[in-house]
Amino acid sequence: MSSTNPAEYELDPDIASRLKTNADGLVPAIVQDADTNDVLMMAWMNDHALAHTLATKKGTYWSRSRQEYWIKGETSGHTQEVTSVRLDCDADTILVHVNQVGAACHTGTRTCFDADRIL
Amino acid sequence: MSSTNPAEYELDPDIASRLKTNADGLVPAIVQDADTNDVLMMAWMNDHALAHTLATKKGTYWSRSRQEYWIKGETSGHTQEVTSVRLDCDADTILVHVNQVGAACHTGTRTCFDADRIL
Repeated sequence: MSSTNPAEYELDPDIASRLKTNADGLVPAIVQDADTNDVLMMAWMNDHALAHTLATKKGTYWSRSRQEYWIKGETSGHTQEVTSVRLDCDADTILVHVNQVGAACHTGTRTCFDADRIL
Repeated sequence: MSSTNPAEYELDPDIASRLKTNADGLVPAIVQDADTNDVLMMAWMNDHALAHTLATKKGTYWSRSRQEYWIKGETSGHTQEVTSVRLDCDADTILVHVNQVGAACHTGTRTCFDADRIL
């Protein structure tokens, strides 16, 4: 498919039937660096964001604050090349491995978990 | 405090004022192996579960299905000794590093993400 609109990507029915979304149709996606295994960020996917991620290997999420699709790096250049996608045991969480270009966090730090250690 | 009831543990007011819980008072907690950096599981914490985790260094969660606190390993023996706790940039996700005893997943696999790779 040549569309660049995630909303036009349909999820494989077998995966869609297993995926357990929340009341808003969303699933948390944990994004992990494929090389270092550092957890870079957590974001949310709906069926179309996951379908777009699987088809294009570009980390694609649903922004709850902006209520729109968000292809990571499209504006910042800090893209994510997806190398694997896994569901957890009850299919309500997604684990995404990526080759991260530049900072994963919008604050400019490598990961979103670099700045605030409480233990 | 010597109580073994997480509900009796109060979160530091500075952390509580920053933590952004969802409508149910919960925050997703990503649990990562302190040695291998493997993501073991994702669970949910409320203020008391986080306070109990920080005070006892035992991974403590809120079970949405059972609607009760859940100190990991209390029945299975598969305990989690917490080595660090971090908040992400907007304080709505928690990253917990643990020394995991035995399987992290209730299915018996090392992690909850071992069985279902979709890419």
